[in-house]
Amino acid sequence: MIKVAILGGSGYTALELIRILLRHPHVEIAAVTSRQDEWLHDLHPSLTGRVSIRGEPFDADKLMKKGVQCAFGCLPHGASREALPHLLNRGVRVIDLSADYRLRDPNVYAEWYGESHDDLAHLAQAVYGLPEIYGDEIKTAQLIANPGCYPQTAILGLAPLVGGHHIELKPIIVNSVSGVSGAGRTPKLTTHFPECNENFSAYNVGKHRHTPEMEQALSDVAGEPVEIIFTPHLAPMDRGIFSTIYAVPRRSFTEAQLLDLYRGYYEKAAFVRVRESLPATKDTFGTNFLDLCPKFVRGRIIVLAVEDNLVRGASGVAVQNFNRMYGFDERTALMA
Amino acid sequence: MIKVAILGGSGYTALELIRILLRHPHVEIAAVTSRQDEWLHDLHPSLTGRVSIRGEPFDADKLMKKGVQCAFGCLPHGASREALPHLLNRGVRVIDLSADYRLRDPNVYAEWYGESHDDLAHLAQAVYGLPEIYGDEIKTAQLIANPGCYPQTAILGLAPLVGGHHIELKPIIVNSVSGVSGAGRTPKLTTHFPECNENFSAYNVGKHRHTPEMEQALSDVAGEPVEIIFTPHLAPMDRGIFSTIYAVPRRSFTEAQLLDLYRGYYEKAAFVRVRESLPATKDTFGTNFLDLCPKFVRGRIIVLAVEDNLVRGASGVAVQNFNRMYGFDERTALMA
Amino acid sequence: MIKVAILGGSGYTALELIRILLRHPHVEIAAVTSRQDEWLHDLHPSLTGRVSIRGEPFDADKLMKKGVQCAFGCLPHGASREALPHLLNRGVRVIDLSADYRLRDPNVYAEWYGESHDDLAHLAQAVYGLPEIYGDEIKTAQLIANPGCYPQTAILGLAPLVGGHHIELKPIIVNSVSGVSGAGRTPKLTTHFPECNENFSAYNVGKHRHTPEMEQALSDVAGEPVEIIFTPHLAPMDRGIFSTIYAVPRRSFTEAQLLDLYRGYYEKAAFVRVRESLPATKDTFGTNFLDLCPKFVRGRIIVLAVEDNLVRGASGVAVQNFNRMYGFDERTALMA
Amino acid sequence: MIKVAILGGSGYTALELIRILLRHPHVEIAAVTSRQDEWLHDLHPSLTGRVSIRGEPFDADKLMKKGVQCAFGCLPHGASREALPHLLNRGVRVIDLSADYRLRDPNVYAEWYGESHDDLAHLAQAVYGLPEIYGDEIKTAQLIANPGCYPQTAILGLAPLVGGHHIELKPIIVNSVSGVSGAGRTPKLTTHFPECNENFSAYNVGKHRHTPEMEQALSDVAGEPVEIIFTPHLAPMDRGIFSTIYAVPRRSFTEAQLLDLYRGYYEKAAFVRVRESLPATKDTFGTNFLDLCPKFVRGRIIVLAVEDNLVRGASGVAVQNFNRMYGFDERTALMA
Repeated sequence: MIKVAILGGSGYTALELIRILLRHPHVEIAAVTSRQDEWLHDLHPSLTGRVSIRGEPFDADKLMKKGVQCAFGCLPHGASREALPHLLNRGVRVIDLSADYRLRDPNVYAEWYGESHDDLAHLAQAVYGLPEIYGDEIKTAQLIANPGCYPQTAILGLAPLVGGHHIELKPIIVNSVSGVSGAGRTPKLTTHFPECNENFSAYNVGKHRHTPEMEQALSDVAGEPVEIIFTPHLAPMDRGIFSTIYAVPRRSFTEAQLLDLYRGYYEKAAFVRVRESLPATKDTFGTNFLDLCPKFVRGRIIVLAVEDNLVRGASGVAVQNFNRMYGFDERTALMA
Repeated sequence: MIKVAILGGSGYTALELIRILLRHPHVEIAAVTSRQDEWLHDLHPSLTGRVSIRGEPFDADKLMKKGVQCAFGCLPHGASREALPHLLNRGVRVIDLSADYRLRDPNVYAEWYGESHDDLAHLAQAVYGLPEIYGDEIKTAQLIANPGCYPQTAILGLAPLVGGHHIELKPIIVNSVSGVSGAGRTPKLTTHFPECNENFSAYNVGKHRHTPEMEQALSDVAGEPVEIIFTPHLAPMDRGIFSTIYAVPRRSFTEAQLLDLYRGYYEKAAFVRVRESLPATKDTFGTNFLDLCPKFVRGRIIVLAVEDNLVRGASGVAVQNFNRMYGFDERTALMA
Repeated sequence: MIKVAILGGSGYTALELIRILLRHPHVEIAAVTSRQDEWLHDLHPSLTGRVSIRGEPFDADKLMKKGVQCAFGCLPHGASREALPHLLNRGVRVIDLSADYRLRDPNVYAEWYGESHDDLAHLAQAVYGLPEIYGDEIKTAQLIANPGCYPQTAILGLAPLVGGHHIELKPIIVNSVSGVSGAGRTPKLTTHFPECNENFSAYNVGKHRHTPEMEQALSDVAGEPVEIIFTPHLAPMDRGIFSTIYAVPRRSFTEAQLLDLYRGYYEKAAFVRVRESLPATKDTFGTNFLDLCPKFVRGRIIVLAVEDNLVRGASGVAVQNFNRMYGFDERTALMA
Repeated sequence: MIKVAILGGSGYTALELIRILLRHPHVEIAAVTSRQDEWLHDLHPSLTGRVSIRGEPFDADKLMKKGVQCAFGCLPHGASREALPHLLNRGVRVIDLSADYRLRDPNVYAEWYGESHDDLAHLAQAVYGLPEIYGDEIKTAQLIANPGCYPQTAILGLAPLVGGHHIELKPIIVNSVSGVSGAGRTPKLTTHFPECNENFSAYNVGKHRHTPEMEQALSDVAGEPVEIIFTPHLAPMDRGIFSTIYAVPRRSFTEAQLLDLYRGYYEKAAFVRVRESLPATKDTFGTNFLDLCPKFVRGRIIVLAVEDNLVRGASGVAVQNFNRMYGFDERTALMA
């Protein structure tokens, strides 16, 4: 049994993580930290009768005493890079669901997050936790920067095209839609029910922080710089990300060729489903699958990429990374 | 043209009121007060291009200078009974959408609202603004206590039965469901989209503040005390109230007799629709209608009562009251 | 491994059943029948990559050849009592999710379903599959009549009160709300998205077919006839049932006494959670839990009962019954 | 008073049209045709107490006897070009909300609609009813081809750029999202509540029939051929269209310059609102406004275009056209 801690237990990704870990045969949840000193089933009534854990303030020494071997960070960015070094320095392996260790270049971090990074040592050793791209590094990493929800759809949606240099790299259009849980659990006017129900809106046009994350990973895949125009939107639903990606091909494709290309690329990926039929977010609801459907329309390639933002987009891929790190079957606890 | 002011312009009832008043041929919106010193179209983007009014801090003298004759209070309870006396003492007529002047007995107010009432003089002269019951007093009132959203469904749903002493009066069960806009526009965890979407819950069971309001009006109609067991619930939709009312009849009824009773009672009510078919909240969406459907089931009377909580339940009935106060056709601006 | 067949694979209960059975360590899905001769992942895109089963026409002999030991019936009522005898007569154990074998008295069936029952032999031996009430009979039954979604909330919500003769038995009011998946997967105007989204309605007032089912089981518990007034409503959400039950107590209770009564009654029930806090349907979303919260309000008992209509209300309790029938831990595959 | 008929009264656009026309001071609804011989308030319960009209079978002579001067066609394509000639030949003016008379070239119609057009005479004289572009022709037209919902967002979103030759014309990407009412009122699996609630999907990728309509009007504006890549999506809401348009500029723009360009172009358009703030569909809910917000992002122009698909996208613009045809203020009945 691996003893794990969850840091920041009051949000949606923590709840989803707990649900998944409760069915993991090799995991024991040793501690959950929270600023609210409350029972987990009071923070999350759906956990009533399932766990008997009380949220406790973050204290690295206490976590060590409890034998914590691996920590999942569900803290906001900023708070994450304050807390995690205390565990990393004590030898704990960490999967950080925040954005703090995703961007290798601290200048890029500073530019998009508006604050300078102050934990450059750990940043330098962090591995970007997208298993289909960085699968080997993940196995031995101490610190995983768990990928953002939107970036996974863009990166996996484009990797076969970008990797084979089949498309123009500057720019690629990523038009994405998210359910509201992606905005977190802190009440705000924009996520107040009567504001976003029966409503569809765009936000952060041209300046969403997931843009450089997409560019970094896709540039790795391409071996040269990739530029993304990313437009996020909010749809009136709890969960789900739908990305519609537009690329200019360097040569013509039939749809059969595109399907072949994608199926070949993801042959060994347990959680990527390449589909001929148009996907819908509900096809992936509550699962760790990421569905891809490439189309060729009037000289352009359109890729549809779909996932559940809380599972595949956050807590599911975190456990997928965990399974890789500890040598378990990648699918453990993720096929419910 | 009657010059009106709207006090507290940032919430949903204020927005709905402005929409209705913009199509009223005899109204000029002279001022809107708001703690936020912002343009109305910034507070409410749907008003872009429709009004050019800036929210201003409440100042009774300034409102008088602007010639305000009638004020609609869209303030929270407590704030309402602080602000309104300044206008009432200057001769302005007031329609208060808060709960502050609804309960005639200040002890009942203190019991349910947890604070003592400090404007007993105006409380004594306030008229409960339910036109189908208190229509004549409304015409000459200076201060209207606009009725609550839930109470209107209960009171109008039960008045024909209670008025004719056809049912037992203690207790009557009112099981109600509301859309989320009824909770106001201030973000809270309970009204955060991912908390209430795809969810149905009860709240304030046995202690909702609309209970004594129902009892007061129904006791007026009955001429003796009425006791209500009221259970409010929240449904994942913006608008709409659906009340399912259970009463024990003192004699047996056919459904035809029930329909006759209700149709006779509401013969002259422009906004009450007595229906044979089962109503749905959407039938009244965006309108000032309140739909009633009485049924006789296994020895019990079940009344279904439906309305739009923001129109009939708040701003629409406020304008209906205004029309009565100023001698306009009751339906003016309310048939859109 | 128990080889099972699912009869009628195109609907929502079948999909939910497949999801659950895929994680059951002792089950092999040997066949799925369907009038549509299609791959399961075409009927249900979310199953893409998870099963490789093609819907086949119902043929009892073919199912026997495949070694089917237990069949789950997901057929509509009527169709169920036509198909199931072919399997029962061949010795297959059957869990029928339709209503065909729930009402012991064929006259009651005829009265509420408008057609006479023609399989009286099997009807006589069917066991009503509510494990918390009929747990022992279930173990040895060949034919389980899996309970209706609404009835489970009413029966389990009332059993502690009715069993102890703590309330008046005629009538008890059950006011219920369901998500739309309860209406099945066949498109109809009433379940067309723009008709039921942003809408709340009542239906089948006083004549819903789940009424006699509630009365039969509660009369068993009480040892004398119970009468239910049942009012079902439709809420704009996929899943969830919320029942608000009103009963007249024969003596006064404190809430602590009510909680004790319920906790004692359900001490050994793995899937009934007795709660002090007000429940919401989302607390049970995707789970087999049924949450109960009893309240004492103004001389009346109000019980709030909540479940997921597709899991606890149908496919989850079916697997719970299956686990009992085959001697597995009742919770197997049901704690995801 | 202009006497009007509504052809095909059972759908959503007809309901919306009736709502609008009921507040039009110069219109009398003389007849509503419907295959269902039913009262309008049975087809549309929200109209209870508002109209006393019974749907009648389509019969041109009967409509003439009732004095019908103008007909609104709310029939499906195909049915529309069968019925309308009977009225056109009798001198009635017609506003057709179907697609039958929108595409000038019958070959393009045949290509996209899969059937050949058989009313070429009327097709030749039809005017595309987009007032901001074809305002003068509309005044004197006998037959208006009311524009599609999606095309209006694309055409008005792009006209200032295309008109001034500021962008590349081949291709332009139009990524659109619609509420479910856009799919009409006939129940289908894809619009069944549990299928599209909590779901986001793409459909008809690369082959939606609104594509040639966008290209025809934009080519008119440009004076040269325009090519559109159009990807429609479905969001879980009743109403609203949100189009995110991506264009390659021929020169660089500041956002201020873009806003100036758009504000100048739509200076006299009563229903187009050019906005700096990011729009949301709810800002236009229930209104005839179309909101535009142009952005300049990483060398690309992104235009956000938003409307209510049933009002601006169908019945509202139909009444706007009607007002132009009969010389009324364009805003009559459209500012509710």
